[in-house]
Amino acid sequence: MQKPWEGRFKEKTEGFVERFTQSVSFDKGLALWDIRQSIAHVKTLLKAGILSEEEAEKLIQGLSSIEREVSEGRFAFRQELEDVHMNVEFRLTEKVGDVGGKLHTARSRNDQIATDERLYIKDNILYMCGLLKELRKTLVRLAEKSVEVIAPSYTHLQRAQPIRLAHYFLAYREAFLSDEKRFMDAFRSADALPLGSGAVAGVDFPLDRFYTAELLGFNRVCRNSMIATADRDFILDALYACAVCGMHLSRLAEDLILWSTEEFGFVDLPDRLCTGSSIMPQKKNPDVLELIRGKTGRLYGNLMSLLTTLKALPMSYDRDLQEDKEPLFDSLKTLADCLEGARLVLEGMNLRANKMKSFSGGFTLMTDLANYLVLKGLPFRQAHHVVGSITAYLLEKGKKPEELTMEELRNFSDLFEKDALSLLDAFTSADRKVAYGGTSKEDILERIHVAKREEGLI
Amino acid sequence: MQKPWEGRFKEKTEGFVERFTQSVSFDKGLALWDIRQSIAHVKTLLKAGILSEEEAEKLIQGLSSIEREVSEGRFAFRQELEDVHMNVEFRLTEKVGDVGGKLHTARSRNDQIATDERLYIKDNILYMCGLLKELRKTLVRLAEKSVEVIAPSYTHLQRAQPIRLAHYFLAYREAFLSDEKRFMDAFRSADALPLGSGAVAGVDFPLDRFYTAELLGFNRVCRNSMIATADRDFILDALYACAVCGMHLSRLAEDLILWSTEEFGFVDLPDRLCTGSSIMPQKKNPDVLELIRGKTGRLYGNLMSLLTTLKALPMSYDRDLQEDKEPLFDSLKTLADCLEGARLVLEGMNLRANKMKSFSGGFTLMTDLANYLVLKGLPFRQAHHVVGSITAYLLEKGKKPEELTMEELRNFSDLFEKDALSLLDAFTSADRKVAYGGTSKEDILERIHVAKREEGLI
Amino acid sequence: MQKPWEGRFKEKTEGFVERFTQSVSFDKGLALWDIRQSIAHVKTLLKAGILSEEEAEKLIQGLSSIEREVSEGRFAFRQELEDVHMNVEFRLTEKVGDVGGKLHTARSRNDQIATDERLYIKDNILYMCGLLKELRKTLVRLAEKSVEVIAPSYTHLQRAQPIRLAHYFLAYREAFLSDEKRFMDAFRSADALPLGSGAVAGVDFPLDRFYTAELLGFNRVCRNSMIATADRDFILDALYACAVCGMHLSRLAEDLILWSTEEFGFVDLPDRLCTGSSIMPQKKNPDVLELIRGKTGRLYGNLMSLLTTLKALPMSYDRDLQEDKEPLFDSLKTLADCLEGARLVLEGMNLRANKMKSFSGGFTLMTDLANYLVLKGLPFRQAHHVVGSITAYLLEKGKKPEELTMEELRNFSDLFEKDALSLLDAFTSADRKVAYGGTSKEDILERIHVAKREEGLI
Amino acid sequence: MQKPWEGRFKEKTEGFVERFTQSVSFDKGLALWDIRQSIAHVKTLLKAGILSEEEAEKLIQGLSSIEREVSEGRFAFRQELEDVHMNVEFRLTEKVGDVGGKLHTARSRNDQIATDERLYIKDNILYMCGLLKELRKTLVRLAEKSVEVIAPSYTHLQRAQPIRLAHYFLAYREAFLSDEKRFMDAFRSADALPLGSGAVAGVDFPLDRFYTAELLGFNRVCRNSMIATADRDFILDALYACAVCGMHLSRLAEDLILWSTEEFGFVDLPDRLCTGSSIMPQKKNPDVLELIRGKTGRLYGNLMSLLTTLKALPMSYDRDLQEDKEPLFDSLKTLADCLEGARLVLEGMNLRANKMKSFSGGFTLMTDLANYLVLKGLPFRQAHHVVGSITAYLLEKGKKPEELTMEELRNFSDLFEKDALSLLDAFTSADRKVAYGGTSKEDILERIHVAKREEGLI
Repeated sequence: MQKPWEGRFKEKTEGFVERFTQSVSFDKGLALWDIRQSIAHVKTLLKAGILSEEEAEKLIQGLSSIEREVSEGRFAFRQELEDVHMNVEFRLTEKVGDVGGKLHTARSRNDQIATDERLYIKDNILYMCGLLKELRKTLVRLAEKSVEVIAPSYTHLQRAQPIRLAHYFLAYREAFLSDEKRFMDAFRSADALPLGSGAVAGVDFPLDRFYTAELLGFNRVCRNSMIATADRDFILDALYACAVCGMHLSRLAEDLILWSTEEFGFVDLPDRLCTGSSIMPQKKNPDVLELIRGKTGRLYGNLMSLLTTLKALPMSYDRDLQEDKEPLFDSLKTLADCLEGARLVLEGMNLRANKMKSFSGGFTLMTDLANYLVLKGLPFRQAHHVVGSITAYLLEKGKKPEELTMEELRNFSDLFEKDALSLLDAFTSADRKVAYGGTSKEDILERIHVAKREEGLI
Repeated sequence: MQKPWEGRFKEKTEGFVERFTQSVSFDKGLALWDIRQSIAHVKTLLKAGILSEEEAEKLIQGLSSIEREVSEGRFAFRQELEDVHMNVEFRLTEKVGDVGGKLHTARSRNDQIATDERLYIKDNILYMCGLLKELRKTLVRLAEKSVEVIAPSYTHLQRAQPIRLAHYFLAYREAFLSDEKRFMDAFRSADALPLGSGAVAGVDFPLDRFYTAELLGFNRVCRNSMIATADRDFILDALYACAVCGMHLSRLAEDLILWSTEEFGFVDLPDRLCTGSSIMPQKKNPDVLELIRGKTGRLYGNLMSLLTTLKALPMSYDRDLQEDKEPLFDSLKTLADCLEGARLVLEGMNLRANKMKSFSGGFTLMTDLANYLVLKGLPFRQAHHVVGSITAYLLEKGKKPEELTMEELRNFSDLFEKDALSLLDAFTSADRKVAYGGTSKEDILERIHVAKREEGLI
Repeated sequence: MQKPWEGRFKEKTEGFVERFTQSVSFDKGLALWDIRQSIAHVKTLLKAGILSEEEAEKLIQGLSSIEREVSEGRFAFRQELEDVHMNVEFRLTEKVGDVGGKLHTARSRNDQIATDERLYIKDNILYMCGLLKELRKTLVRLAEKSVEVIAPSYTHLQRAQPIRLAHYFLAYREAFLSDEKRFMDAFRSADALPLGSGAVAGVDFPLDRFYTAELLGFNRVCRNSMIATADRDFILDALYACAVCGMHLSRLAEDLILWSTEEFGFVDLPDRLCTGSSIMPQKKNPDVLELIRGKTGRLYGNLMSLLTTLKALPMSYDRDLQEDKEPLFDSLKTLADCLEGARLVLEGMNLRANKMKSFSGGFTLMTDLANYLVLKGLPFRQAHHVVGSITAYLLEKGKKPEELTMEELRNFSDLFEKDALSLLDAFTSADRKVAYGGTSKEDILERIHVAKREEGLI
Repeated sequence: MQKPWEGRFKEKTEGFVERFTQSVSFDKGLALWDIRQSIAHVKTLLKAGILSEEEAEKLIQGLSSIEREVSEGRFAFRQELEDVHMNVEFRLTEKVGDVGGKLHTARSRNDQIATDERLYIKDNILYMCGLLKELRKTLVRLAEKSVEVIAPSYTHLQRAQPIRLAHYFLAYREAFLSDEKRFMDAFRSADALPLGSGAVAGVDFPLDRFYTAELLGFNRVCRNSMIATADRDFILDALYACAVCGMHLSRLAEDLILWSTEEFGFVDLPDRLCTGSSIMPQKKNPDVLELIRGKTGRLYGNLMSLLTTLKALPMSYDRDLQEDKEPLFDSLKTLADCLEGARLVLEGMNLRANKMKSFSGGFTLMTDLANYLVLKGLPFRQAHHVVGSITAYLLEKGKKPEELTMEELRNFSDLFEKDALSLLDAFTSADRKVAYGGTSKEDILERIHVAKREEGLI
């Protein structure tokens, strides 16, 4: 098979080199976007008078029929044709004859691949944002169901203060909302048309690139042909958004893995979402969550991979850039799976409210006692110290805070009055967090209402 | 010295633990922002009726006087006080007495540190954007001076097509413009107030957090106290923006290191920006550029560092988060230096236009011949093949393209006519790149004009 | 102050460049090793007849007196002298006059710095191996004390099978033993002398490099001057060893953080190793463990940093290599602290054997039932299925395995006989793991014995 | 199809979960090693009296026939069987009936997979060492051919001193020799048998694990069942060795990419190892080298990926560990390809000795003049300064060093005598590097001789 650049070469490419340098085994994933681009390119060439109406029509028909072959899995990609572009072009020429050789006019693979990738990323980001929205909706629904569930919050993985469990789910919703922002930042990076940049210096033909951009749905046109072909920031931005979202998922997964231990016992995962042990018959393992947590590695690794490849690359296009695709495909697929997996687990798990409640009293209420003293006028530092001493006293006596008597309290400070004892209740504690953004019922109901509106649930 | 939490503890902290867990040796860099925050907090406590006018005034005066001590380098940070917050509070109590103990009312170090960091990052990002703008202005000025300089462009580090050198500088301007976008995305991540979240669950006092946000210049208020104290995405976003910008600089540095070799010889670096060899008297080394390139490692490493730390951390605040500060400080300082260094080199270097010109003819013009044939109606693929054969012919004969005769040309294709020979000129080649974003003089002048307007140069 | 390379330069170095390129602010940490090297270099020059006895003696006296200044903290490093080498040489010339200018004969900073770093790493690795040994000894002692403590083991963080707790401590000992191996691999990488390689091509003087190697305790001599000055693998190897060891510590820290939750409750950390909360008086946080876990980020980041810097660096020395030192210093210091911190926690923590015991029966014994059936001849897969059904039955009935009756057992398989019930005991279960490396008492005692011998405890 | 652990479960696994948690799509690459292991396991069970002779024979025959199916590509892996182990076991039971269910006796997938991976890594490392040796042999052969080729060496990418080109090739040979060491360190990490560790606590049957180790060629037996199933250091070690070797290749590739520019022009790559441009007919691009350089990203990324996954994983086996395989497979395959590609390029490229020679005189000889003065007794620092001044003088006059007259020389120092002029020759300069490891002919011939012996070339 003839290479597109064979005219100048005297020797055939060595077999190893053909295999080593080919990209079609993975860039075939871009075929549909490549064809979409080519159709827009043909229209632009027509508008510029470089193709005749008839030629353009032939090419578009040919491309459309190849599109169907690809969609239906009937297209046979050939490694010796190097990449997706040459595979499509070769097939096109088979179908429409010599006019197929006009497709590559005013285009280089350098601007072509960048255009494919940007189209691909934009579509995938929108898909990912859809998955993120589904996950957030699930969290909002969980929040709605758990306003009246009291649970311990943790800092340093030590029980800290009682919260309404809804507060926890809303916390993660905020994280996954920020992921959407990060993905949309990446979307905007990708939303510029490189096509029309040629190999590096621009193209010799008066293409109307703004027309092409409109056809392909790009918001703007790359303003400099050199950077347009050398730049892969838009892929980095997508890989980075995946990495951060993966990190959020790893934290959620860690929590739920802990919660599904017998020791915490806050949730029970349904059989259908677990796997067992090949040797220990009693085991029911939170594999989905563990894999979500573990796949963070892959998302970070892919980001590091491309950052490394780009370091110190000379302007402008270098073949090293071919290494941009596999990490991208892998991160997008991995993250989509993890989002789906997390949603399934959240929807499927059973909450054990009693267990949570039983861990939510006791010492997690001590801060409330301190704040009581503050409201009586004691400087916070002194109040903190008084209540620290009460804590030490209780630990020594082996008593629970709820068992404190007025007398004992007043041994530590005269400021304690009868109402102090009523503080020693988890619901009371939660609802005392009156400032915006806290775990009081009133605030949480308001936050859920806003969230539902934002997610289109009402 | 008494710890703020000592009431509950029976043993003194071990010396090693004090040293290992302290953060004041580095978080003292946040002191000015910490004080700024505390002043706003006092005002909020006053508004909420928790402090009296008199108390608030005392505290603000005390804080202001500490601010001066810090600014003037007179503040003595003490390791045994753990962190910047406790250092400031301790000093405050020394200055204003017991009322100092009221400062920490309705605040935890968990929301406090997050607030400090967000304030710090916002200020630093604006500073960085200023440096980026300076660098871009330098590039625009260089572009303006080099419209008439012809240079070879490179792909695969092989000479590709002639460009006007201005085109190259404008390419990097686009990259550094995208960095500003990335930093401003990070700015928006940081632009929300955590204060008022307490340790994890919110605060017991009716603070007007929107008032605090206004005082501190935050655009919005964190909506959930748990994630507000657990989240470090805004630091990741800044580290990521630094990493990508560092990558851009590494590519620019690589180019300029190549250009300053004797082999390329495109630029001459002035003595004042170079260092020499301790052993080879003739050496003049582009150390500044090499260090800029090398420091990419540090910027990537810092990003990886925090990503790793955050992986699988349970909700919400964990002490691991203390590890967020040193990478942040290091990346911001490193990048600021590198931007400054790059600007100095660009401004100081001498261009050798003749050398560039001499590398810009020859085979870099072959694409123009192919496009000539396309305009005569030959499908691009065939045109490419014809010109490939001409190239092979020239290489075999040891001739330059400029030495081609009409006769020779027509041996390869009848479509060549007299005007074909006139193509074999670098300026002609450049100016034939007529599509938007290419290297033609007309387009470049327009791009420079727009750039000057955008950078406020006109 | 005159630069060593100033003869060829016409302009003074710009202030920014001086600050940006200087390394003395961190490479001063190498001063003692630099001096040690210089003394050996002087002796080698003497042996080669390049220095006279008198000159050598003067130089060595001068260097020794500078060594004392450094050791005693009296040496004033000056940034304008660029690096540690020039600081030492400048001071030497102040002390001994013009003969000081002979020190740099047959040496370049390129081979000099590589030699300093190798010496430094070798010493630091030996120190680190000492800390690792101390940690392992602590683990062995803990193992010895906990042979009779039964605890649940975990897979997927679900209780799996009962173990003798000693088994757990011995597991980590193996990990930290492998770290020693990794550090000694790095030691061997570093154990070759670069000095005598000059700037890149070798030196003009007949130095006896094997003599120098002997003086400095190097096992071999670098065989090629180019790679000797371009290579930083030995630093990577050390950074990698630190990263893996940090990962081991992060796993241990994660376990102990879990164990010190109220939910697990397996250990109680002493007050002196914890810190408290500035707002929640009851909190006692495992900060040391959290920081150990969090610092993994820094260890990974430092490795990534140098890997990035080295990527695609042209042969041989490039200034980028200056970026090798700060990650190295930071990783070595960080890891040493973490090893110390982990040891302190392990030694100081109180084990709650009762809590562990109470989690070690029940379903963690089911595998033993399955193996019982196997020994009766049932294929393992069928045995596993039978016991899976028993598990499901128990869960449905809300019964514990220990409450199973013979009758119930035989409903599932006729192969169960009376002795089956005796299996439902954690000690029995542990001691049935008779194969080498398992948790039976016999094997563990043997493993402890071997460990004590290997660690020099007997 | 029945899961091995289904007895205890009430619901069928959800389709997504089956797909998300399966590993057979990639761990099937371990099938041959898995079978090899199972055969050894059967023999061990036989020796322990758990299987009868007849059962063992049946199982071994079944396994052997499956081995052939796999080798010949006839084995149909099924996703719903989760992993390679279950696929093999299921097929075995199809072939040999119920006795197949006895294969998993005294074995868990936790120790089984670790054993597969260790076997696989050991074999692959030996294969990689073979490729490394081939590459080194190529370098030695190139060295032998280029003893008489003079080339400039570079520091800071500035011409430094003349070398014999052989010296350059020998430098890289040292780097690739150190890679073998690093791989063999990884080999030793992997060279211990986990089988017999069970799921976590050991196995209930008296297996002779030393016998198994012998059958499988392991040097030792894992001494602790917990760490044996939790540990993936041996994979990290292999990934690290790949990363460092990839870094070496990236440096070599960078050099050769530079050398194949027109500007340097030191080598000419043959057509069969290059690819062309789809648009610029004159281009011949060093794609193989660029891809080798670019793939460093992937090698670094894979290392970071697994490091991240392992961070803070609780003891002992967690499902996150499943993420260890894809990076491993990818790094081994990538590096093997890159080693092969580098060797092909080195063997195929044409050296342009004249070009190298023409860059090797001139200012690269100035250090020799300085050393001349040193030998006349001038302290090196003063000599360096004198020659720096000569350099400045020459640059100002636009003269080459070779054009210096005695008179001019003596203007700078009286110590110059007639023989000084003879120094201004590249061969002389090279051969003056008399110390061991330098670029003198004598030393290089000796180094080549040793290298040939070490590589088995003589």
